[in-house]
Amino acid sequence: MIVEVVAVGTELLLGQIVNSNATAIGAALAERGYDAHFQQVVGDNTDRISGAVRLAISRADAVIVTGGLGPTQDDLTREAVCRAVGLPMEASEAHVQALRRWWERRGVAMAESNLRQAEHPAGAELLANPKGTAPGLALEHEGTLIFCVPGVPAEMLHLLGEEVLPRIGGRSAEKAVIANRLLRTWGRPESYVADALDDLYTGAVNPSLAFLASGGEIKVRITAKAADRSEAFALIEPVESEVRSRLGPTVFGADDETIERVLLQRLNQLGYTIAAAESMTGGLVAAALTSLPGSSAVFKGALVAYERGLKSRLLGVEGGDVVTRETAERMARGGRELLGADVAVSTTGSAGPEPLERPAGTFWVAVSTPDHTQAREMRMAGDRERVRAYAVTSALQLTRLALLGTWWKG
Amino acid sequence: MIVEVVAVGTELLLGQIVNSNATAIGAALAERGYDAHFQQVVGDNTDRISGAVRLAISRADAVIVTGGLGPTQDDLTREAVCRAVGLPMEASEAHVQALRRWWERRGVAMAESNLRQAEHPAGAELLANPKGTAPGLALEHEGTLIFCVPGVPAEMLHLLGEEVLPRIGGRSAEKAVIANRLLRTWGRPESYVADALDDLYTGAVNPSLAFLASGGEIKVRITAKAADRSEAFALIEPVESEVRSRLGPTVFGADDETIERVLLQRLNQLGYTIAAAESMTGGLVAAALTSLPGSSAVFKGALVAYERGLKSRLLGVEGGDVVTRETAERMARGGRELLGADVAVSTTGSAGPEPLERPAGTFWVAVSTPDHTQAREMRMAGDRERVRAYAVTSALQLTRLALLGTWWKG
Repeated sequence: MIVEVVAVGTELLLGQIVNSNATAIGAALAERGYDAHFQQVVGDNTDRISGAVRLAISRADAVIVTGGLGPTQDDLTREAVCRAVGLPMEASEAHVQALRRWWERRGVAMAESNLRQAEHPAGAELLANPKGTAPGLALEHEGTLIFCVPGVPAEMLHLLGEEVLPRIGGRSAEKAVIANRLLRTWGRPESYVADALDDLYTGAVNPSLAFLASGGEIKVRITAKAADRSEAFALIEPVESEVRSRLGPTVFGADDETIERVLLQRLNQLGYTIAAAESMTGGLVAAALTSLPGSSAVFKGALVAYERGLKSRLLGVEGGDVVTRETAERMARGGRELLGADVAVSTTGSAGPEPLERPAGTFWVAVSTPDHTQAREMRMAGDRERVRAYAVTSALQLTRLALLGTWWKG
Repeated sequence: MIVEVVAVGTELLLGQIVNSNATAIGAALAERGYDAHFQQVVGDNTDRISGAVRLAISRADAVIVTGGLGPTQDDLTREAVCRAVGLPMEASEAHVQALRRWWERRGVAMAESNLRQAEHPAGAELLANPKGTAPGLALEHEGTLIFCVPGVPAEMLHLLGEEVLPRIGGRSAEKAVIANRLLRTWGRPESYVADALDDLYTGAVNPSLAFLASGGEIKVRITAKAADRSEAFALIEPVESEVRSRLGPTVFGADDETIERVLLQRLNQLGYTIAAAESMTGGLVAAALTSLPGSSAVFKGALVAYERGLKSRLLGVEGGDVVTRETAERMARGGRELLGADVAVSTTGSAGPEPLERPAGTFWVAVSTPDHTQAREMRMAGDRERVRAYAVTSALQLTRLALLGTWWKG
């Protein structure tokens, strides 16, 4: 099964945005064992888009066109695909109604140009796009499947996973599947994790191991290829057990078990509520704790005490320096009291770029539970955004360890 | 002058790395006023690379091939270019000597496979690469300039700037530069903005207009081509004035003036401090207000009152429904008082996926200043992440409008 991606958009040619859609689709295709020989990028020009689609049809079993499905005059993918496959344009009355309803729900009058999004090559199937107003399109020409999806990454990813890949899978003769288990670790550097697993990594073919550092975590990916998913996971499981036993509580979750999810689950199990008292993270710890549906069952609230006066007036912090163990611990205890929670986590530090008492990137995290209040100093190099993101991860991870009765010894 | 980039590497097709080389080259070409109609990506396969290069030669005045110049068996660009243009391979004795010296200086024995890097299509010019061992290549075929540069970004960028662009410039009759102005708007849908500017868009060549939707904003890009930057901006200015006058306070900034930056600047001008009282945005408004260095000069703090009891105990909200104008207004007033700020912004609503009093995606924003307290109901379709992000943008934008003495009438 050969699949080709055609990305549409002058902004890609001008270097104004990176073609991350092609990267994401390429990775998804590779994971399923499909082949990719070429990718194309083409600007907002009907003739050229049409030519690129024809070329892709001539050499691939499936073509995925991203971008150019919006409501404005420079969104030309629908016209270009009509021209490439020799079909007239038609409008979907059902989608016209859906568009009118979408705008009604937002309480905004719909401009008529939006109706372009109900047009499509005659006979094409409309693919539901719950994340936006442009539906995806699916059609077939000379034995090649053709899909059009919006260029907005969230909409593209949704349609790729829910609509495009299942349809390609239904057509493909490829019987081998590739399965992955992603083990998420925190608290040890990548080199430590790699050294600990060196003998499992070297020479391993099926399953194979890879190390990925992102979002403040070190991830270990175990990949196996087999006739079906259960065979592939049978290959993965003994390696996974070995990795987990070597890395201990450093492993906090697998696959889509983010730290937010793991932490909320643990709080639910314990019947605890949580609150945050933040300074240098400026609300990001609270935002992480409320990122998942259902968080209101355990999350009470947060005080972002950026100004020094608020730290003392509302959290009971005394005078003197604020980037200290004492301030972090008082903020966590004060946060539990003010917000009436069983557990509170606090952050205080220097997010940068200017130093604040301590060098930029230095911060304290404290966690206060009904049993203990503990604090730890941490450091991260990099810009303000990176330092704040690492402080959030640290706050959530240290809370997890405190609730496990383990405290990070690193 | 039409220039086409051909990026070589199976790792690009597999989505293992992003094609940042194509982005960087695209931006450099656009800045110099060259046209780009297509980009290609092709895997490590001699026939396919050769086909991609032939296609590019057939439609461009200059072709830049990146990648596939290393010393290993899967570096096939040299062979593929020979095949594409019908030239034999030859070896440069001078470069063989240079390679031997390079390895000697590093004190490492050279593997003989490195000598492949001294090979090139007969008659091609070798372009010096001080950052690596693979020289670039320059040749001409049927009036098209062909350049090969390594895929390592630092080596590619060096050769692009020092060797490739000057040679294209020497050939090009093009003396022009391209300049852009990005106008950021909020409060009107993309279709409304496009309709309002339709006559400026249609048939406009220099400057030209484009519409981009991202991050909850609609951006209008005005692009002009001229002999130098000041002439280009002289073309842009009258169009920019017309766009600004038609869109009014919908336009909140230009180029890198994000809403966070614009709002902090306005607060600084007025000598006002700000605070937030958040429910459904869970700390994200505070996080946005503290995302920039120097925010501590105007930002006091925030209360995230997720639990109903906190809204009444700390912000003075009375019983009854919470997704209402009254709750939003009381939260904003209560936030100003609790946190001691001149201005406070509040959010209360249903982030989803489950409805809360009102359908998911419905929320209220209130802004309380020393003069007024005003609230507005908003709606956004989509998942929890999208709804929360839109609520943050709305909170910041409505605060900006309140401080301008304008309130969104949309």
